[in-house]
Amino acid sequence: MTTANKSITVVSAHSADFVWRAGGAIALYHDMGYEVRVLCLSFGERGESARLWKQGKALEEIREIRRAEAEKAAGILGAQVQFFDMGDYPLVPTKELENALVQEFRAHPPEFILTHSLKDPYNADHPRTTELVLECRILAQAHGYPSEYGVIGAPGVFLFEPHQPEQCDFQVDVLLDISSVFERKRQAMECMEAQEHLWEYYTDVAKRRGVQAGRNSGGSIRYGEAYQRIYPYVGGVIL
Amino acid sequence: MTTANKSITVVSAHSADFVWRAGGAIALYHDMGYEVRVLCLSFGERGESARLWKQGKALEEIREIRRAEAEKAAGILGAQVQFFDMGDYPLVPTKELENALVQEFRAHPPEFILTHSLKDPYNADHPRTTELVLECRILAQAHGYPSEYGVIGAPGVFLFEPHQPEQCDFQVDVLLDISSVFERKRQAMECMEAQEHLWEYYTDVAKRRGVQAGRNSGGSIRYGEAYQRIYPYVGGVIL
Amino acid sequence: MTTANKSITVVSAHSADFVWRAGGAIALYHDMGYEVRVLCLSFGERGESARLWKQGKALEEIREIRRAEAEKAAGILGAQVQFFDMGDYPLVPTKELENALVQEFRAHPPEFILTHSLKDPYNADHPRTTELVLECRILAQAHGYPSEYGVIGAPGVFLFEPHQPEQCDFQVDVLLDISSVFERKRQAMECMEAQEHLWEYYTDVAKRRGVQAGRNSGGSIRYGEAYQRIYPYVGGVIL
Amino acid sequence: MTTANKSITVVSAHSADFVWRAGGAIALYHDMGYEVRVLCLSFGERGESARLWKQGKALEEIREIRRAEAEKAAGILGAQVQFFDMGDYPLVPTKELENALVQEFRAHPPEFILTHSLKDPYNADHPRTTELVLECRILAQAHGYPSEYGVIGAPGVFLFEPHQPEQCDFQVDVLLDISSVFERKRQAMECMEAQEHLWEYYTDVAKRRGVQAGRNSGGSIRYGEAYQRIYPYVGGVIL
Amino acid sequence: MTTANKSITVVSAHSADFVWRAGGAIALYHDMGYEVRVLCLSFGERGESARLWKQGKALEEIREIRRAEAEKAAGILGAQVQFFDMGDYPLVPTKELENALVQEFRAHPPEFILTHSLKDPYNADHPRTTELVLECRILAQAHGYPSEYGVIGAPGVFLFEPHQPEQCDFQVDVLLDISSVFERKRQAMECMEAQEHLWEYYTDVAKRRGVQAGRNSGGSIRYGEAYQRIYPYVGGVIL
Amino acid sequence: MTTANKSITVVSAHSADFVWRAGGAIALYHDMGYEVRVLCLSFGERGESARLWKQGKALEEIREIRRAEAEKAAGILGAQVQFFDMGDYPLVPTKELENALVQEFRAHPPEFILTHSLKDPYNADHPRTTELVLECRILAQAHGYPSEYGVIGAPGVFLFEPHQPEQCDFQVDVLLDISSVFERKRQAMECMEAQEHLWEYYTDVAKRRGVQAGRNSGGSIRYGEAYQRIYPYVGGVIL
Repeated sequence: MTTANKSITVVSAHSADFVWRAGGAIALYHDMGYEVRVLCLSFGERGESARLWKQGKALEEIREIRRAEAEKAAGILGAQVQFFDMGDYPLVPTKELENALVQEFRAHPPEFILTHSLKDPYNADHPRTTELVLECRILAQAHGYPSEYGVIGAPGVFLFEPHQPEQCDFQVDVLLDISSVFERKRQAMECMEAQEHLWEYYTDVAKRRGVQAGRNSGGSIRYGEAYQRIYPYVGGVIL
Repeated sequence: MTTANKSITVVSAHSADFVWRAGGAIALYHDMGYEVRVLCLSFGERGESARLWKQGKALEEIREIRRAEAEKAAGILGAQVQFFDMGDYPLVPTKELENALVQEFRAHPPEFILTHSLKDPYNADHPRTTELVLECRILAQAHGYPSEYGVIGAPGVFLFEPHQPEQCDFQVDVLLDISSVFERKRQAMECMEAQEHLWEYYTDVAKRRGVQAGRNSGGSIRYGEAYQRIYPYVGGVIL
Repeated sequence: MTTANKSITVVSAHSADFVWRAGGAIALYHDMGYEVRVLCLSFGERGESARLWKQGKALEEIREIRRAEAEKAAGILGAQVQFFDMGDYPLVPTKELENALVQEFRAHPPEFILTHSLKDPYNADHPRTTELVLECRILAQAHGYPSEYGVIGAPGVFLFEPHQPEQCDFQVDVLLDISSVFERKRQAMECMEAQEHLWEYYTDVAKRRGVQAGRNSGGSIRYGEAYQRIYPYVGGVIL
Repeated sequence: MTTANKSITVVSAHSADFVWRAGGAIALYHDMGYEVRVLCLSFGERGESARLWKQGKALEEIREIRRAEAEKAAGILGAQVQFFDMGDYPLVPTKELENALVQEFRAHPPEFILTHSLKDPYNADHPRTTELVLECRILAQAHGYPSEYGVIGAPGVFLFEPHQPEQCDFQVDVLLDISSVFERKRQAMECMEAQEHLWEYYTDVAKRRGVQAGRNSGGSIRYGEAYQRIYPYVGGVIL
Repeated sequence: MTTANKSITVVSAHSADFVWRAGGAIALYHDMGYEVRVLCLSFGERGESARLWKQGKALEEIREIRRAEAEKAAGILGAQVQFFDMGDYPLVPTKELENALVQEFRAHPPEFILTHSLKDPYNADHPRTTELVLECRILAQAHGYPSEYGVIGAPGVFLFEPHQPEQCDFQVDVLLDISSVFERKRQAMECMEAQEHLWEYYTDVAKRRGVQAGRNSGGSIRYGEAYQRIYPYVGGVIL
Repeated sequence: MTTANKSITVVSAHSADFVWRAGGAIALYHDMGYEVRVLCLSFGERGESARLWKQGKALEEIREIRRAEAEKAAGILGAQVQFFDMGDYPLVPTKELENALVQEFRAHPPEFILTHSLKDPYNADHPRTTELVLECRILAQAHGYPSEYGVIGAPGVFLFEPHQPEQCDFQVDVLLDISSVFERKRQAMECMEAQEHLWEYYTDVAKRRGVQAGRNSGGSIRYGEAYQRIYPYVGGVIL
């Protein structure tokens, strides 16, 4: 089976989350031939654009800047990006958003879904997004849910590393080797001009996860990304 | 790299544990060309041979019966089996046993190790075995630990499903599809003549884990085995 | 005090849940003389009727089939069943439903309540039902909550075993011996014609819980059901 | 920096919670010169006024009694109290309440916030209040959240001891020595005339926490209050 | 079946633990006709006799005082007490002690066993005792363990409330109503002359657990004791 | 009260642990006037000196190198260091070591103790050290434990950040600002010539903890160290 028509889906509460947290995975899967679909529920215009507000930018302007940055970053990583423009801080899911995600999952059944952590005492939009994604994945599996598309199977769900993993009960179940694509992740991070302080921070995170990946594999790995699994791995080998 | 000279190691507190709990994995990896090394720390002669004691058998006789059964089962599954004869109920690890395991891990570096759960309020020998295995794996990685063999890398450790998983805080991280080898697992279970009541019980467990494996993969799987991971998965894909 | 006017209440997110998960308890308490009140919040028409949808049935038809099956099963088990017809996948509790449950709890104060698990990554309707039940029980205890009935005491709440207990953080606090009524549970399960694959599955679950009940009591028990406790047991003996 | 213009904020789901659970902290911080701001989201008129309902009081009367009691207790403890009159059992947060709390936090940036536990199977209003407080604190930190006031820093959040701490997963992270102000806490408790049974109960809790405070400090402490931390302590010493 | 020849067993790390922590249960079960067997592994002579050391008493003298107090308290509660004199702080289990407990459990099969918590960062002897008890119970179930007595069934194990329950991950699974025997528990506590400060403390604990027992049962209970369950409850009713 | 005669104690399983994990705290407390006592239970000669073994060094030589490095690092940080030379991989505590630590804690009662995490699946010596430290602290509090020194009070115990915190269930309770002393920590790290790869790694950890410290305090902090608390904070303020 080729990957030519396979896709993975990344659900990002704010428009930059997918870059810091899953940029490596996106680039890797793009390189493997997957379609990578990034769904940005908001632009992070209120809660994650402090520098732009301090510069006196207006709301609409900030949204445009954030959108442009996200599109540029997605282009570098090889992802298609959609914006749902739900507003942030707080991001309040609606019945319409729920249905839109269900239809998206059905129209483009993902091999797996990447999204936020289950808990985050620093960011209420993140776990709310995760809860929504888990529910929509279940609805997309239900034969009686109204849709023009067929039901999906049982895609895995993997959670991004949050900013302060121990406070979020984050478990490291997967350490992904992103060494081969890290340069592109760094370039994508640098699209976020208003968050320059995070470029180095997330480079250090990638280095640390790389060292740990090496320790857990007996090899040497330069850059990594960590993910938490929601559902068990199923297969004919023990991994 | 071929699997011709690869091995996996199964550490079994009592001589029948490896059959009920990992018989499917053993047969699968044997079929893939791995050497499967089963280390039985005791024969389970005191604590897991109730029917033989009720039949009035003597200790030495029970050990021989248990050894013969385990050898026969290992043969069916395609494993090499060693007996450490440490006694059971309680199984008390010694410095010598610890060293023997370290040397074993070094002489035959396993791709991964299978052993018992971290907690078991019904069986104190099981978690004590797990604790020993985890320590010996670490010692086998230490350059200064005396040995004629080189250090090992970082083999994964996966835990068997215990008899009452919820009471043992057992997490299902891996559901292994053992459908293709289940018949051999059943035959191996039937070598344990004194534990006939468990044949059907563990067949039902395999069916239940198979159904769950199907639910978690969107496919249809007849028989499964569940494992808990200790260390994160490391790789170039998200699994 | 006789059980003549005592009741227990089972809150089932979908119309078949009470059969698979609590059929044994229902039949047992019926036989002890309790009134058993089953509240089905939805028919499970969208999310738990895959075979009917595949057969091309329409929504209304499916609801009627599911209602008829649930009524038949309730009859076999000896329960009174009410349908709240809230819709499923997603089941969205409303203020009206909340009030209806509070009034139900007040009008028929249950000795205890059975409902779903606190967490379920495979089914969002289940934990939402549990959350609702816990809240309504509290409201039914409040003297100022408007009602024509008096407040209730402090009924226990026990949670059903979910389909994949380890993934739902399910704890086994109670193993109920349902051997004497299992035949009726099986008959009730067989009312669910579109879910034939579950008849054997839940028979195996009952056998497994029976074996575990035997292990935990030193006796021999054929069939069991597992429950998790929410509130401590209070009494003059240690149980 | 003096404490003259510093404040702490206590968010109380019902109008008496702040007295039983944080009366000592309030009096202590008042004595240190802090402004102590108590926000009562409801009067607890439906769910925590059983005796008044049994006396046949009407809803409006109960609210007035509860308001008067809370004001009197706040006066004794040295706190300013505001009432949001949202109703209780259930207490249902609204967008307006959310905004009011955000503006309150911004207008009077607290050194830290005291509120309820994260979980409480006996009281659904309490954890819902906590969830609201955590979200509003985050919104108050967001530069883009509309407000005439500036953003706040990162005030700590500490959780009150619930009535049945073990059932609420309550962790004791801080044992506050309230010996010097306990007499005033007792007087404030005695303002709650309809809850006389709790005066002695919470005096005993304070004694028990005092003994434990002594055990954990090697000293002798008469009365204590327990709190759980949400965010790490940050500082130049290890505390 | 009468209770005439039934027994329960209480394993107490130090000679006074059984009084503070399980005095109510002991008196209740004595009144129900059970033989109550108390096994004191040490006298608590080093770690729990501070006042006697401060008075300048010698080790041997302290042991005698502690033994006499424990015997007097056991007499009041209606228990038979044995002393194993293993020393405390640290209490170090030996192979001989292990065997003695196994033989004791076999010679007098308990309906259930009461002992300490699984964790206690204030007292290392307590969890070590619990671990020993759990292991000995398993050994007493093993047909091959050498003994002149037959194997035991599957007695429940319930854990005492430790001094600081939240720090010990103590769960309250059972609230035992000890109102009818509390006077005797108080008298037994007063036998511990060197620990007078604990008389009132544990009276307050009993009151608090009584109030909570009332809240969890809808009744009114004056004095209670809390216990944590290790194994599930098995029976024909849901408790 | 001056700090002139106050001390803190750091218990390090291997001779370099105290540098990577607590170098900042040591330098800070030294600067505050505390005596900082570092107890190295082993040299880490077998398990944490891979490069020296690869260079063909002999065991005795490695111990000397490790001792010299640790002494040099301690000097830079301002600590007094003792070596117990117990051997590592495995580090096996003895009764003599236990007594030596108790006497040390009594002779130099620490304000608080720093040591390893409670769990570490990558390093068995670390949690074994923690367990020993917790037990010795308790023994040092016991009036009957033989010693020429008086009992100690109730010093806090704080746990170092392990190499892979999420795998070790490490909780971040304290973020210590070590910016003012980081240069010295870096110099101390550079004493470990055979572990050059860790200099940058732990510099990055310090930066990351610094950023998080800033986020949790609303300030800006360059370098931090994380600790987990074992016992509650006790005081007259809420911290």
